[in-house]
Amino acid sequence: MKETKTTFEKQKEKIHQIIYEADTPAGKWFDILLILTIIVSIILVMLESIESINKNYHNFLNIAEWIITILFTIEYVLRIFTIKKPSSYIFSFYGIIDLLATIPKYISLIFVGTHALIALRALRLLRVFRILKLARYLGASKILTTALKASRIKIIVFLLTVLVLTIILGTIMYLVEGPRNGFTSIPYSMYWSIVTLTTVGYGDISPQTPLGQFIASIVMILGYGIIAVPTGIVSSEMAKIDNVPKNTQHCANCGSDKHLDNSSFCSNCGEKLNYE
Amino acid sequence: MKETKTTFEKQKEKIHQIIYEADTPAGKWFDILLILTIIVSIILVMLESIESINKNYHNFLNIAEWIITILFTIEYVLRIFTIKKPSSYIFSFYGIIDLLATIPKYISLIFVGTHALIALRALRLLRVFRILKLARYLGASKILTTALKASRIKIIVFLLTVLVLTIILGTIMYLVEGPRNGFTSIPYSMYWSIVTLTTVGYGDISPQTPLGQFIASIVMILGYGIIAVPTGIVSSEMAKIDNVPKNTQHCANCGSDKHLDNSSFCSNCGEKLNYE
Amino acid sequence: MKETKTTFEKQKEKIHQIIYEADTPAGKWFDILLILTIIVSIILVMLESIESINKNYHNFLNIAEWIITILFTIEYVLRIFTIKKPSSYIFSFYGIIDLLATIPKYISLIFVGTHALIALRALRLLRVFRILKLARYLGASKILTTALKASRIKIIVFLLTVLVLTIILGTIMYLVEGPRNGFTSIPYSMYWSIVTLTTVGYGDISPQTPLGQFIASIVMILGYGIIAVPTGIVSSEMAKIDNVPKNTQHCANCGSDKHLDNSSFCSNCGEKLNYE
Amino acid sequence: MKETKTTFEKQKEKIHQIIYEADTPAGKWFDILLILTIIVSIILVMLESIESINKNYHNFLNIAEWIITILFTIEYVLRIFTIKKPSSYIFSFYGIIDLLATIPKYISLIFVGTHALIALRALRLLRVFRILKLARYLGASKILTTALKASRIKIIVFLLTVLVLTIILGTIMYLVEGPRNGFTSIPYSMYWSIVTLTTVGYGDISPQTPLGQFIASIVMILGYGIIAVPTGIVSSEMAKIDNVPKNTQHCANCGSDKHLDNSSFCSNCGEKLNYE
Repeated sequence: MKETKTTFEKQKEKIHQIIYEADTPAGKWFDILLILTIIVSIILVMLESIESINKNYHNFLNIAEWIITILFTIEYVLRIFTIKKPSSYIFSFYGIIDLLATIPKYISLIFVGTHALIALRALRLLRVFRILKLARYLGASKILTTALKASRIKIIVFLLTVLVLTIILGTIMYLVEGPRNGFTSIPYSMYWSIVTLTTVGYGDISPQTPLGQFIASIVMILGYGIIAVPTGIVSSEMAKIDNVPKNTQHCANCGSDKHLDNSSFCSNCGEKLNYE
Repeated sequence: MKETKTTFEKQKEKIHQIIYEADTPAGKWFDILLILTIIVSIILVMLESIESINKNYHNFLNIAEWIITILFTIEYVLRIFTIKKPSSYIFSFYGIIDLLATIPKYISLIFVGTHALIALRALRLLRVFRILKLARYLGASKILTTALKASRIKIIVFLLTVLVLTIILGTIMYLVEGPRNGFTSIPYSMYWSIVTLTTVGYGDISPQTPLGQFIASIVMILGYGIIAVPTGIVSSEMAKIDNVPKNTQHCANCGSDKHLDNSSFCSNCGEKLNYE
Repeated sequence: MKETKTTFEKQKEKIHQIIYEADTPAGKWFDILLILTIIVSIILVMLESIESINKNYHNFLNIAEWIITILFTIEYVLRIFTIKKPSSYIFSFYGIIDLLATIPKYISLIFVGTHALIALRALRLLRVFRILKLARYLGASKILTTALKASRIKIIVFLLTVLVLTIILGTIMYLVEGPRNGFTSIPYSMYWSIVTLTTVGYGDISPQTPLGQFIASIVMILGYGIIAVPTGIVSSEMAKIDNVPKNTQHCANCGSDKHLDNSSFCSNCGEKLNYE
Repeated sequence: MKETKTTFEKQKEKIHQIIYEADTPAGKWFDILLILTIIVSIILVMLESIESINKNYHNFLNIAEWIITILFTIEYVLRIFTIKKPSSYIFSFYGIIDLLATIPKYISLIFVGTHALIALRALRLLRVFRILKLARYLGASKILTTALKASRIKIIVFLLTVLVLTIILGTIMYLVEGPRNGFTSIPYSMYWSIVTLTTVGYGDISPQTPLGQFIASIVMILGYGIIAVPTGIVSSEMAKIDNVPKNTQHCANCGSDKHLDNSSFCSNCGEKLNYE
């Protein structure tokens, strides 16, 4: 069957390999170029958002953005074209992001004032993670993900506690301080609660009455303790992962399977260990 | 005796089961409905506290709140009615909260200006924890509670240290900065100490004199170290809990199932343990 | 010899026991009364620092403070009088604090304007720790102290690193932002560095130039990592302390001395363990 | 060969020993003097940056700085002179810092207004670490460095995640809040993201719209969790280091001294281990 493939089909297969896979030299180069283009496009969006730069270099930025947009369009079309089931890409997480990153420039031609949407391009940066997945960073990334997954339930209980606490604190502070002192509504009071509990403390609203300040002090000490909970969760998960026996060679003589890394002999019976 | 029960008594028993227990399908549905009603009631209170919304939708909000209040009243009456010893519910933690959540609307009919008390309804959210206790979140919740209980004494010593530190720091800063620089009284200075030690840092008061700033710097570095203590406590408790039952071999002789890792003999009766 | 003691000497000995020791009922009562008096005296100092209260209740506060001062004076004289070597108390840490807490009121009679020094009385609160040492809080307090002592060198290296970092960052930000943007001098810039590194962030000074904001961002991410170091130190020390074998019974047969708590038989050879 | 050395060469060798090495009494004294001079020079730079002090003591500070500059110059020349390959010092990290710390004073003679560069002298403080390396602080310092190195990859993944998060959050907040509410550009919005994620919270910009405040709340809770990651990394590394070399029995056969706890046989050569 392979031999009957037309040159066109072979070409398509080759492009697919370059775009979607990364273990060939060409695929690697494509990924590096893609990341560079994404980074350049994000820097352009950033520069454009700075008014003084936008005023002086508007034309240059506009042309550069059109070049990036066309490159992204070509990539998007090629991705749809070379995959067997286009819908599996189009409606995937990255497919939607790629579309959102490409079309705003075209839309801005039709509807004036929608140009700011080009900033959505920053979302493309998420692709960095997919590309890096292929690199050696995988290990650490996986450990982090595993730690988060393992403590999923603890985190949910923790977030629920924080939510309930925030609503109750927000309500109490709204009653105590009231709109006169900047706590204009319960949702705004809740915003203050979160700003305080997380020890961010902008200071855009802060309690003015002695009672409010007393309650705020209690809240802060609470926040103190609460900050310890996610840290404790993550730390204990990480410690667990790190403690998984790294060298688990099975001793043929006594059956012990816990050995120091690089051991040549069983630490229990002295039998020679065979490396696999 | 059971057969002689009147239909009324049977009905009462059935309602009790629905309201107070959650292992029947009806009880589960009641709990879900109750949580939803509580959430709706809290959203109503939040919306009402936002002035612009309250002005435009006052009538709608008022009617919705009366409906919620009547629902809560029915539930409250049923709870008293179907329990054998009503006082055991009325004076319980949740009984008082339920009352506090229900009566403000009635009181606001008699006394004008007490309407804000309706915000107390947020306290009903605490019921979420009782209802969730029945769900699978129990495990994690229990671990958190156990960790907090186990380090009770450490936490008390820690809080006492923070309190003494706060009073001494507050007094020193009051003497150093004084009312001229915003440290108007010792309690207010103590409020500043807590805001600083917990690294919240609103910035509503901050030291103005070089000496005050120097002392504040020391306090912050201290706060740095102090923040490590609760984290250390919680982390170490969590690690301990995670480390508990690794070796749970069942002793064939005495049935004890808690043994040190790598034990060859039962620590309770001395019987030889069989490895699986 | 004991029999020849005069009544006066006996009396002196008895008072010494009450004041300096806490294992007799009378000594315990004295300690509780002392703490209460200290707390009352500190509340008085706090109330006096609030101007509106001081204006209205000045006479009452003044009389109450004289009563406290006289009580403290009596205690101070008795402490000197009943100890064998008075100098060992007078020049001790608590001796100096007791004096500093007592004399300001007398000094304020002679020198007008020194009245604020009465706030030094807050230092007496440190005595709480000496008194509580006798209570059951000792255990946890000791663990905290041990953890801090064990990581002494790590903490010194950490503080040194923070100090050097603060000086270098302060200097760089002074050069970058300069007095125009609020960084009026290097020490003030260093104060900003500490406020930022410890994530307090008052906002009384914050970088205004893009370069300054960029450097500040790096500093904050750094502070992020740095905050992990003391936490890591304390956590690892606490974990170590908790892991110290609690049951260290020595097995008469095989010599193993690591057993599960409440073990009756050696986990290594099955020998019966003798409780001491 | 040694005997034929001229007095000059001997002298050179002796100076080299004093300046570059620290295990002789003279070398130790030189190091202590050097640190003291660096500290004095930094205090001078700090004092000069305070305008009120600089105005009153300008002449004194100027002379003191010239003395320090000359001392540094002598040291710099001697370092080049006594080393066999001068370029190995001149282009080393400390060589460049030493030059940067010495020349600004000379440059300020030629170019007016460059005097502020003298603050670069603070960088010389980094030499403290090299000198302290010889002291007993080495142990703890090494542990910290090892912990950082061991978790290198985890830290890179973490920083990358923070960077991507910052760009995306910055862009979203720029779109939501916009220049009207202080989020004047995407880079400035990113600065806000970092200030918030790290819980610093200056409050120089804070969200003004309800939607912005809602997003900010989510970001803060995120920051909460993120702050746990570096702490978890460092804690687990520290715990690992502490757990390393508990059993360091020396094997009589092969000399290996790293064995698993409770090993009976050498893990390297299989020789029976003798317990002491």
